[in-house]
Amino acid sequence: MPMDESTLFDDPDELRAGQDDDAPKEPDDSGVERVMRWFKNHADLENRFSSVFRQSLDEVLDGQRTGRYDVDKLEKTEKTYLGTKVEIVCRAAFNLPRGEDMDYVVCGHEVDAKFSLGGQWMIPREAMGHLCLLMSANDRLSTFKVGLVRISEEVLTRGGNQDGKRSISLSGRSHIKWLYQQGRLRRNLLLGLDPATREALERVPVGQNRVDQLFRYVHGCIVDRNAVVTVAKQLDAPKRVRDARQRLAREGVIILGHQKESPLVAKALGLPIPDKGTWVATRVVPAPAPGDGRPVAFIAGAPYAVARPDESPHPAPVIDY
Amino acid sequence: MPMDESTLFDDPDELRAGQDDDAPKEPDDSGVERVMRWFKNHADLENRFSSVFRQSLDEVLDGQRTGRYDVDKLEKTEKTYLGTKVEIVCRAAFNLPRGEDMDYVVCGHEVDAKFSLGGQWMIPREAMGHLCLLMSANDRLSTFKVGLVRISEEVLTRGGNQDGKRSISLSGRSHIKWLYQQGRLRRNLLLGLDPATREALERVPVGQNRVDQLFRYVHGCIVDRNAVVTVAKQLDAPKRVRDARQRLAREGVIILGHQKESPLVAKALGLPIPDKGTWVATRVVPAPAPGDGRPVAFIAGAPYAVARPDESPHPAPVIDY
Repeated sequence: MPMDESTLFDDPDELRAGQDDDAPKEPDDSGVERVMRWFKNHADLENRFSSVFRQSLDEVLDGQRTGRYDVDKLEKTEKTYLGTKVEIVCRAAFNLPRGEDMDYVVCGHEVDAKFSLGGQWMIPREAMGHLCLLMSANDRLSTFKVGLVRISEEVLTRGGNQDGKRSISLSGRSHIKWLYQQGRLRRNLLLGLDPATREALERVPVGQNRVDQLFRYVHGCIVDRNAVVTVAKQLDAPKRVRDARQRLAREGVIILGHQKESPLVAKALGLPIPDKGTWVATRVVPAPAPGDGRPVAFIAGAPYAVARPDESPHPAPVIDY
Repeated sequence: MPMDESTLFDDPDELRAGQDDDAPKEPDDSGVERVMRWFKNHADLENRFSSVFRQSLDEVLDGQRTGRYDVDKLEKTEKTYLGTKVEIVCRAAFNLPRGEDMDYVVCGHEVDAKFSLGGQWMIPREAMGHLCLLMSANDRLSTFKVGLVRISEEVLTRGGNQDGKRSISLSGRSHIKWLYQQGRLRRNLLLGLDPATREALERVPVGQNRVDQLFRYVHGCIVDRNAVVTVAKQLDAPKRVRDARQRLAREGVIILGHQKESPLVAKALGLPIPDKGTWVATRVVPAPAPGDGRPVAFIAGAPYAVARPDESPHPAPVIDY
């Protein structure tokens, strides 16, 4: 999709700077390189950042109390606070000490943390000359960005807002060293539901009925604790899931967790295997004669397969969850 | 303690208004009365509000990640967000629908929620003519205030801040109908520690060592989950407590929970009895001959009493926690 580049500019000076392709390249910044390497030395780095953003978004949405799952529904004070929450969660995730002037010290370098939902980072004056860890997350696309840049006049727009904060100019963006430009953010299940499923959920009141509806309609994909407490608007997701199992058993719906028989059944049926605090639901029917081709799980001694939409409901087998 | 009243006034007009004791009393506001009654009809109302403030404060402090337990350590964006969090938690606690213009509908009346740590509520223009639920909490004094007032020119200061918000004038304060002026806020254990105990905690690094130290020094009072995760800077308070039990057993320290033998032992020793998610620690020694006067608990068949500071350590009995 072509993009109207003019919308990226508030300032004609910035436009000129963006076109200045002949400017001499600055020498590599050893601070940036070292901090990049420090992060890259972490096993599972992408997952770790994904968790930082997922946890921050979920906590500020506070689905269990508000039923919300869409950042567009956040109030202005909550969006502002989201930046603080990301700074806190990221500090904890990497166990980063506080700097003298900036938020973090990373391998001896002062680094400021800056989060912006839309990637329009606002840089305070105090960050001049320091490194900034630039972070953004897009919950609709399930992606995130993490990059590092050293703040200089060269990378900032002219002007600035009433607090004297300035954003990164288009030419400044070319100086950002990216850890992730398209990092995979753990999916926000409820935000990604198709309209028909969303409508089915909203047909019933929040609470156990809506949890039942979630597991009645959302099959074959991982459902996390947060999705359950958000549609329940109650705490104690495991209890909601146990109740849903009982209430959906006669329709043939099974809800697999991470314990006992669950992972084996999930694997046999070709479903994703839930981690702790997540579940996967499906509808099963007794497996027909050989040759049907569907994966089969032996549950309570009998073969079961994932039901096709046209197969009529059959009570679920008893699973040792 | 005498108070310098002049510090309460920004505006000399307000001072005059405050002295205007001869003004005719306004007629009772039936909306205020009905909303007051609606709240008062809730069993356990004081505890419910206490939980609203305790949860809101603890969540924004985010002790598990930050180690903080003092609201004075919050950043400005966090203090602003605290008001939003209280609005959310209060809505959930009383299951209040959203109003058309204001935050809540309470028994048919639109009510705006306003929280301020210091009780300097800032009232937006849109609230004019509406009811406001005014809330504040003092974590040092373990108190909270909840009141209702109908917003009118009469109750507001002149002027206002850059957003056009105005505070309640001194004379306006006399119009507030209080549900609680000195409500009991559940105690913030760590904030209330004496300097010697705080120093003992800070002598060891955060984590299990500091959890051990907490239960080594803080005896005879309820320690909640939040206090444990804050000194641990880790999740899973029950695991931290189980480990502390093992590590402190040879010093004679027992840490009672809410299950199995724990409540019985707590009761027999004259200690507060923990609810779920809370604990109480003490140091015990074999009870001396009768006549000693201390309460005695029979644990594993032998009598134990709370140790006096001068009694030397004796290994703790094995308790079925």
